Amino acid sequence: MKNMYKVYGNMLSGNCYKIKLLMEFLEIQHEWMPIDIMAGENRACDVVRLKGNGKIPLLQINESEFLTESNAILNYLATGTMFLPNDNFIRAKILQWQFFEQYSHEPYIAVARYINKFLGMPADKIRQYQSKQEGGHAALKIMETQLAVSPFFVGEAPTIADISLYAYTHVAADGGFDLVDYPHINAWLARIVAMPNYVAME
Amino acid sequence: MKNMYKVYGNMLSGNCYKIKLLMEFLEIQHEWMPIDIMAGENRACDVVRLKGNGKIPLLQINESEFLTESNAILNYLATGTMFLPNDNFIRAKILQWQFFEQYSHEPYIAVARYINKFLGMPADKIRQYQSKQEGGHAALKIMETQLAVSPFFVGEAPTIADISLYAYTHVAADGGFDLVDYPHINAWLARIVAMPNYVAME
Repeated sequence: MKNMYKVYGNMLSGNCYKIKLLMEFLEIQHEWMPIDIMAGENRACDVVRLKGNGKIPLLQINESEFLTESNAILNYLATGTMFLPNDNFIRAKILQWQFFEQYSHEPYIAVARYINKFLGMPADKIRQYQSKQEGGHAALKIMETQLAVSPFFVGEAPTIADISLYAYTHVAADGGFDLVDYPHINAWLARIVAMPNYVAME
Repeated sequence: MKNMYKVYGNMLSGNCYKIKLLMEFLEIQHEWMPIDIMAGENRACDVVRLKGNGKIPLLQINESEFLTESNAILNYLATGTMFLPNDNFIRAKILQWQFFEQYSHEPYIAVARYINKFLGMPADKIRQYQSKQEGGHAALKIMETQLAVSPFFVGEAPTIADISLYAYTHVAADGGFDLVDYPHINAWLARIVAMPNYVAME
Protein backbone atom coordinates (compact mmCIF):
# COMPACT_ATOMS: atom_id res chain seq x y z
CA MET A 1 0.00 0.00 0.00
CA LYS A 2 1.29 3.42 -0.94
CA ASN A 3 2.36 5.67 1.88
CA MET A 4 -0.32 8.28 2.53
CA TYR A 5 0.27 11.83 3.70
CA LYS A 6 -1.18 12.84 7.03
CA VAL A 7 -2.05 16.48 7.56
CA TYR A 8 -2.55 17.72 11.12
CA GLY A 9 -4.68 20.82 10.72
CA ASN A 10 -7.78 22.84 11.34
CA MET A 11 -10.03 23.96 8.50
CA LEU A 12 -10.80 27.29 10.17
CA SER A 13 -7.11 28.21 10.01
CA GLY A 14 -6.15 29.82 6.72
CA ASN A 15 -2.64 28.39 6.99
CA CYS A 16 -4.08 24.85 7.24
CA TYR A 17 -6.70 25.48 4.57
CA LYS A 18 -3.91 26.31 2.08
CA ILE A 19 -2.73 22.70 2.29
CA LYS A 20 -6.27 21.30 1.92
CA LEU A 21 -6.94 23.50 -1.11
CA LEU A 22 -3.75 22.50 -2.94
CA MET A 23 -4.29 18.82 -2.16
CA GLU A 24 -7.81 18.98 -3.58
CA PHE A 25 -6.67 20.83 -6.71
CA LEU A 26 -3.97 18.22 -7.27
CA GLU A 27 -6.08 15.28 -6.08
CA ILE A 28 -3.41 14.24 -3.60
CA GLN A 29 -4.63 11.43 -1.36
CA HIS A 30 -4.23 12.24 2.31
CA GLU A 31 -5.61 11.70 5.75
CA TRP A 32 -6.77 14.88 7.48
CA MET A 33 -6.11 14.81 11.22
CA PRO A 34 -8.32 17.48 12.80
CA ILE A 35 -6.68 19.50 15.58
CA ASP A 36 -8.80 21.88 17.66
CA ILE A 37 -6.43 24.67 18.68
CA MET A 38 -9.01 26.47 20.81
CA ALA A 39 -9.27 23.26 22.86
CA GLY A 40 -5.47 22.99 23.13
CA GLU A 41 -5.21 19.85 21.01
CA ASN A 42 -2.04 21.15 19.36
CA ARG A 43 -0.34 20.84 22.77
CA ALA A 44 -2.11 17.60 23.72
CA CYS A 45 -1.19 15.79 20.49
CA ASP A 46 2.29 14.27 20.85
CA VAL A 47 3.03 14.36 17.12
CA VAL A 48 2.15 18.04 16.77
CA ARG A 49 3.99 18.98 19.95
CA LEU A 50 7.14 17.02 19.24
CA LYS A 51 7.38 17.27 15.45
CA GLY A 52 5.75 20.65 14.88
CA ASN A 53 6.67 22.64 18.01
CA GLY A 54 2.93 22.69 18.69
CA LYS A 55 2.14 24.39 15.39
CA ILE A 56 -0.22 23.40 12.60
CA PRO A 57 -0.38 22.68 9.74
CA LEU A 58 2.01 19.78 10.13
CA LEU A 59 2.61 17.42 7.20
CA GLN A 60 3.67 13.86 7.95
CA ILE A 61 5.31 12.37 4.86
CA ASN A 62 6.32 9.01 6.36
CA GLU A 63 7.50 7.52 9.64
CA SER A 64 10.36 9.96 10.06
CA GLU A 65 9.79 12.92 7.74
CA PHE A 66 7.69 15.91 8.83
CA LEU A 67 7.27 19.46 7.59
CA THR A 68 5.88 22.57 9.25
CA GLU A 69 5.22 26.07 7.88
CA SER A 70 2.32 26.18 5.44
CA ASN A 71 4.25 27.74 2.59
CA ALA A 72 7.13 25.28 2.86
CA ILE A 73 4.58 22.44 2.70
CA LEU A 74 2.99 23.98 -0.41
CA ASN A 75 6.38 24.15 -2.15
CA TYR A 76 7.06 20.52 -1.27
CA LEU A 77 3.72 19.22 -2.53
CA ALA A 78 3.56 21.39 -5.66
CA THR A 79 7.02 20.57 -7.01
CA GLY A 80 6.65 19.05 -10.46
CA THR A 81 3.10 20.37 -10.95
CA MET A 82 1.61 23.37 -12.79
CA PHE A 83 1.29 25.14 -9.43
CA LEU A 84 5.10 25.50 -9.22
CA PRO A 85 6.73 25.89 -12.64
CA ASN A 86 10.31 24.68 -12.84
CA ASP A 87 11.92 28.02 -13.71
CA ASN A 88 14.26 29.64 -11.21
CA PHE A 89 12.97 33.20 -11.58
CA ILE A 90 9.31 32.14 -11.51
CA ARG A 91 9.92 29.99 -8.42
CA ALA A 92 11.59 32.93 -6.72
CA LYS A 93 8.71 35.25 -7.63
CA ILE A 94 6.29 32.74 -6.09
CA LEU A 95 8.42 32.68 -2.94
CA GLN A 96 8.51 36.48 -2.93
CA TRP A 97 4.71 36.55 -2.71
CA GLN A 98 4.67 33.79 -0.08
CA PHE A 99 7.14 35.64 2.16
CA PHE A 100 5.10 38.81 1.59
CA GLU A 101 2.04 36.83 2.73
CA GLN A 102 3.66 35.66 5.95
CA TYR A 103 5.32 38.95 6.85
CA SER A 104 3.11 41.73 5.48
CA HIS A 105 -0.36 40.16 5.10
CA GLU A 106 -1.04 37.37 7.62
CA PRO A 107 0.13 39.30 10.74
CA TYR A 108 -2.48 41.97 9.94
CA ILE A 109 -5.43 40.32 8.20
CA ALA A 110 -5.34 36.92 9.90
CA VAL A 111 -4.66 38.38 13.35
CA ALA A 112 -7.53 40.91 13.02
CA ARG A 113 -9.78 38.05 11.93
CA TYR A 114 -8.68 35.95 14.89
CA ILE A 115 -9.45 38.74 17.39
CA ASN A 116 -12.88 39.36 15.88
CA LYS A 117 -14.07 35.90 14.85
CA PHE A 118 -12.45 33.57 17.36
CA LEU A 119 -11.89 35.72 20.43
CA GLY A 120 -15.17 37.63 19.96
CA MET A 121 -13.50 41.07 20.08
CA PRO A 122 -12.79 41.35 23.81
CA ALA A 123 -12.39 44.90 25.09
CA ASP A 124 -8.68 44.51 25.82
CA LYS A 125 -7.98 43.53 22.20
CA ILE A 126 -9.82 46.33 20.43
CA ARG A 127 -6.73 48.54 20.17
CA GLN A 128 -4.70 45.67 18.74
CA TYR A 129 -7.50 44.94 16.27
CA GLN A 130 -7.61 48.57 15.17
CA SER A 131 -3.83 48.71 14.84
CA LYS A 132 -4.02 45.91 12.22
CA GLN A 133 -6.25 47.80 9.78
CA GLU A 134 -3.63 50.08 8.20
CA GLY A 135 -1.12 47.29 7.56
CA GLY A 136 -3.83 45.03 6.18
CA HIS A 137 -4.96 47.63 3.68
CA ALA A 138 -1.34 48.30 2.71
CA ALA A 139 -1.00 44.61 1.82
CA LEU A 140 -4.29 44.60 -0.09
CA LYS A 141 -3.16 47.64 -2.12
CA ILE A 142 0.03 45.88 -3.15
CA MET A 143 -2.02 42.85 -4.21
CA GLU A 144 -4.49 45.04 -6.13
CA THR A 145 -1.63 46.67 -8.04
CA GLN A 146 -0.22 43.31 -9.13
CA LEU A 147 -3.63 41.88 -10.08
CA ALA A 148 -4.27 44.92 -12.30
CA VAL A 149 -1.50 43.67 -14.60
CA SER A 150 -1.74 39.86 -14.38
CA PRO A 151 -4.70 37.55 -13.71
CA PHE A 152 -2.75 35.59 -11.10
CA PHE A 153 0.14 36.68 -8.89
CA VAL A 154 2.85 35.16 -11.04
CA GLY A 155 1.61 35.30 -14.59
CA GLU A 156 -1.28 33.82 -16.54
CA ALA A 157 -1.96 30.69 -14.50
CA PRO A 158 -2.52 29.95 -10.81
CA THR A 159 0.45 28.96 -8.67
CA ILE A 160 0.93 28.26 -4.98
CA ALA A 161 1.44 32.02 -4.53
CA ASP A 162 -2.27 32.41 -5.28
CA ILE A 163 -3.21 29.66 -2.85
CA SER A 164 -1.12 31.28 -0.10
CA LEU A 165 -2.72 34.67 -0.60
CA TYR A 166 -6.24 33.36 -1.19
CA ALA A 167 -6.43 31.66 2.23
CA TYR A 168 -6.83 34.76 4.40
CA THR A 169 -7.83 37.29 1.72
CA HIS A 170 -11.13 35.59 0.91
CA VAL A 171 -12.14 35.82 4.59
CA ALA A 172 -10.66 39.29 5.15
CA ALA A 173 -14.14 40.60 5.99
CA ASP A 174 -13.90 38.58 9.23
CA GLY A 175 -11.08 40.95 10.19
CA GLY A 176 -13.02 44.08 9.22
CA PHE A 177 -11.52 44.49 5.75
CA ASP A 178 -14.11 45.57 3.21
CA LEU A 179 -12.90 44.45 -0.23
CA VAL A 180 -15.33 46.66 -2.16
CA ASP A 181 -12.54 49.03 -3.20
CA TYR A 182 -10.39 46.22 -4.60
CA PRO A 183 -12.04 45.16 -7.89
CA HIS A 184 -9.03 43.22 -9.18
CA ILE A 185 -8.81 41.25 -5.95
CA ASN A 186 -12.50 40.40 -6.25
CA ALA A 187 -12.11 39.20 -9.83
CA TRP A 188 -9.12 37.09 -8.78
CA LEU A 189 -11.02 35.55 -5.86
CA ALA A 190 -13.75 34.54 -8.34
CA ARG A 191 -11.16 32.94 -10.63
CA ILE A 192 -9.91 30.79 -7.74
CA VAL A 193 -13.41 29.68 -6.73
CA ALA A 194 -14.11 28.65 -10.34
CA MET A 195 -11.16 26.25 -10.49
CA PRO A 196 -11.88 22.50 -10.74
CA ASN A 197 -11.92 20.71 -7.37
CA TYR A 198 -12.14 23.96 -5.41
CA VAL A 199 -13.13 23.31 -1.81
CA ALA A 200 -14.54 25.94 0.56
CA MET A 201 -12.82 26.76 3.85
CA GLU A 202 -15.67 25.43 5.97
CA MET B 1 29.90 42.51 -20.87
CA LYS B 2 28.07 40.15 -18.57
CA ASN B 3 25.00 41.50 -16.87
CA MET B 4 25.79 42.31 -13.24
CA TYR B 5 23.38 42.03 -10.33
CA LYS B 6 22.53 45.19 -8.47
CA VAL B 7 21.56 44.90 -4.81
CA TYR B 8 19.78 47.84 -3.19
CA GLY B 9 20.42 47.39 0.50
CA ASN B 10 21.81 48.52 3.81
CA MET B 11 24.52 46.59 5.60
CA LEU B 12 23.03 47.34 9.03
CA SER B 13 19.84 45.49 8.06
CA GLY B 14 20.03 41.76 8.71
CA ASN B 15 17.70 41.08 5.80
CA CYS B 16 20.09 42.91 3.44
CA TYR B 17 23.19 41.40 5.02
CA LYS B 18 21.87 37.90 4.19
CA ILE B 19 22.24 38.72 0.49
CA LYS B 20 25.72 40.17 0.93
CA LEU B 21 26.87 37.13 2.91
CA LEU B 22 25.63 34.59 0.34
CA MET B 23 27.10 36.59 -2.54
CA GLU B 24 30.49 36.67 -0.82
CA PHE B 25 30.37 32.92 -0.02
CA LEU B 26 29.52 32.18 -3.66
CA GLU B 27 31.76 34.91 -5.10
CA ILE B 28 28.86 36.36 -7.09
CA GLN B 29 29.83 39.62 -8.76
CA HIS B 30 27.43 42.43 -7.92
CA GLU B 31 27.08 46.13 -7.45
CA TRP B 32 25.93 47.15 -3.96
CA MET B 33 23.63 50.18 -4.02
CA PRO B 34 23.58 51.60 -0.47
CA ILE B 35 20.17 52.79 0.72
CA ASP B 36 19.93 54.72 3.99
CA ILE B 37 16.49 53.86 5.39
CA MET B 38 16.81 56.21 8.36
CA ALA B 39 17.27 59.05 5.86
CA GLY B 40 14.25 57.88 3.83
CA GLU B 41 16.29 56.88 0.79
CA ASN B 42 14.09 53.81 0.25
CA ARG B 43 11.24 56.22 -0.55
CA ALA B 44 13.43 58.70 -2.45
CA CYS B 45 14.97 56.07 -4.74
CA ASP B 46 12.63 55.49 -7.69
CA VAL B 47 13.82 51.92 -8.29
CA VAL B 48 13.24 50.86 -4.69
CA ARG B 49 9.91 52.64 -4.48
CA LEU B 50 8.52 51.39 -7.78
CA LYS B 51 10.05 47.91 -7.98
CA GLY B 52 10.29 47.03 -4.31
CA ASN B 53 7.31 48.84 -2.74
CA GLY B 54 9.90 50.84 -0.83
CA LYS B 55 11.46 47.76 0.74
CA ILE B 56 15.03 46.53 0.77
CA PRO B 57 16.81 44.30 -0.03
CA LEU B 58 15.86 44.59 -3.69
CA LEU B 59 17.71 42.51 -6.29
CA GLN B 60 17.90 43.82 -9.83
CA ILE B 61 18.66 40.94 -12.19
CA ASN B 62 18.44 42.85 -15.47
CA GLU B 63 16.51 45.73 -17.07
CA SER B 64 13.11 44.26 -16.27
CA GLU B 65 13.54 41.55 -13.61
CA PHE B 66 13.51 42.43 -9.91
CA LEU B 67 13.06 40.44 -6.70
CA THR B 68 12.15 41.50 -3.18
CA GLU B 69 12.00 39.51 0.08
CA SER B 70 15.41 38.47 1.37
CA ASN B 71 14.65 34.76 1.55
CA ALA B 72 13.21 34.63 -1.96
CA ILE B 73 16.38 36.31 -3.22
CA LEU B 74 18.54 33.76 -1.38
CA ASN B 75 16.64 30.88 -3.01
CA TYR B 76 17.09 32.48 -6.43
CA LEU B 77 20.83 33.05 -6.06
CA ALA B 78 21.61 29.73 -4.37
CA THR B 79 19.84 27.46 -6.87
CA GLY B 80 22.39 25.04 -8.30
CA THR B 81 24.91 25.61 -5.50
CA MET B 82 25.80 23.69 -2.33
CA PHE B 83 23.75 26.20 -0.33
CA LEU B 84 20.51 24.79 -1.83
CA PRO B 85 20.73 21.06 -2.58
CA ASN B 86 18.47 19.86 -5.38
CA ASP B 87 16.32 17.49 -3.31
CA ASN B 88 12.65 18.28 -2.79
CA PHE B 89 12.49 17.41 0.91
CA ILE B 90 15.73 19.20 1.75
CA ARG B 91 14.61 22.30 -0.16
CA ALA B 92 11.32 22.25 1.75
CA LYS B 93 13.14 21.90 5.08
CA ILE B 94 15.28 24.91 4.19
CA LEU B 95 12.12 26.87 3.38
CA GLN B 96 10.57 25.69 6.65
CA TRP B 97 13.42 27.35 8.56
CA GLN B 98 13.26 30.46 6.40
CA PHE B 99 9.53 30.92 7.03
CA PHE B 100 10.20 30.27 10.72
CA GLU B 101 12.80 33.03 10.56
CA GLN B 102 10.44 35.57 9.03
CA TYR B 103 7.41 34.73 11.19
CA SER B 104 8.76 33.56 14.55
CA HIS B 105 12.27 35.05 14.81
CA GLU B 106 12.67 38.34 12.92
CA PRO B 107 9.52 40.04 14.32
CA TYR B 108 10.93 39.55 17.84
CA ILE B 109 14.71 39.66 17.65
CA ALA B 110 15.14 42.12 14.78
CA VAL B 111 12.39 44.44 16.03
CA ALA B 112 13.82 44.49 19.59
CA ARG B 113 17.23 45.28 18.08
CA TYR B 114 15.75 48.06 15.97
CA ILE B 115 14.08 49.70 18.98
CA ASN B 116 17.26 49.52 21.05
CA LYS B 117 20.02 50.12 18.53
CA PHE B 118 18.44 52.38 15.93
CA LEU B 119 15.70 54.20 17.81
CA GLY B 120 17.77 54.48 21.00
CA MET B 121 15.07 52.92 23.21
CA PRO B 122 12.60 55.82 23.42
CA ALA B 123 10.27 55.73 26.43
CA ASP B 124 7.17 55.04 24.33
CA LYS B 125 8.76 51.90 22.83
CA ILE B 126 9.96 50.24 26.04
CA ARG B 127 6.79 48.17 26.45
CA GLN B 128 6.99 46.98 22.85
CA TYR B 129 10.67 46.14 23.35
CA GLN B 130 9.89 44.14 26.49
CA SER B 131 7.01 42.34 24.75
CA LYS B 132 9.49 40.97 22.19
CA GLN B 133 11.70 39.14 24.70
CA GLU B 134 9.53 36.06 25.30
CA GLY B 135 8.92 35.36 21.61
CA GLY B 136 12.61 35.88 20.82
CA HIS B 137 13.70 33.36 23.42
CA ALA B 138 11.04 30.90 22.18
CA ALA B 139 12.64 31.10 18.73
CA LEU B 140 16.14 30.71 20.14
CA LYS B 141 15.07 27.59 22.07
CA ILE B 142 13.72 25.97 18.91
CA MET B 143 17.01 26.75 17.17
CA GLU B 144 19.03 25.38 20.10
CA THR B 145 17.07 22.10 19.99
CA GLN B 146 17.79 21.63 16.28
CA LEU B 147 21.47 22.54 16.59
CA ALA B 148 21.86 19.94 19.34
CA VAL B 149 21.27 17.24 16.72
CA SER B 150 22.83 18.67 13.55
CA PRO B 151 25.75 21.08 13.02
CA PHE B 152 23.70 23.19 10.59
CA PHE B 153 19.94 23.68 10.34
CA VAL B 154 19.43 21.21 7.54
CA GLY B 155 22.06 18.52 7.93
CA GLU B 156 25.83 18.41 7.87
CA ALA B 157 26.59 21.37 5.63
CA PRO B 158 25.55 25.03 5.59
CA THR B 159 22.57 26.05 3.47
CA ILE B 160 20.70 29.30 2.95
CA ALA B 161 18.62 28.36 6.02
CA ASP B 162 21.75 29.02 8.08
CA ILE B 163 22.39 32.32 6.34
CA SER B 164 18.80 33.45 6.99
CA LEU B 165 18.99 32.61 10.68
CA TYR B 166 22.54 33.86 11.17
CA ALA B 167 21.71 37.41 10.08
CA TYR B 168 19.79 38.53 13.16
CA THR B 169 20.89 35.83 15.61
CA HIS B 170 24.52 36.91 15.64
CA VAL B 171 23.47 40.42 16.64
CA ALA B 172 20.69 39.32 19.01
CA ALA B 173 22.52 41.01 21.90
CA ASP B 174 21.56 44.35 20.30
CA GLY B 175 17.96 43.39 21.10
CA GLY B 176 18.74 42.36 24.66
CA PHE B 177 19.06 38.64 24.02
CA ASP B 178 21.90 37.10 25.98
CA LEU B 179 23.04 33.97 24.14
CA VAL B 180 25.03 32.55 27.06
CA ASP B 181 22.41 29.86 27.69
CA TYR B 182 22.50 28.63 24.10
CA PRO B 183 25.77 26.73 23.68
CA HIS B 184 24.77 25.02 20.43
CA ILE B 185 23.81 28.34 18.89
CA ASN B 186 27.18 29.76 19.90
CA ALA B 187 29.05 26.84 18.36
CA TRP B 188 27.02 27.23 15.16
CA LEU B 189 27.72 30.98 14.99
CA ALA B 190 31.43 30.18 15.21
CA ARG B 191 31.11 27.66 12.37
CA ILE B 192 29.58 30.33 10.12
CA VAL B 193 32.27 32.88 10.95
CA ALA B 194 34.94 30.31 10.07
CA MET B 195 33.63 29.75 6.54
CA PRO B 196 35.77 30.93 3.60
CA ASN B 197 34.86 34.42 2.32
CA TYR B 198 32.85 35.24 5.44
CA VAL B 199 32.15 38.96 5.66
CA ALA B 200 31.11 40.79 8.83
CA MET B 201 27.86 42.76 9.00
CA GLU B 202 29.60 46.13 9.34
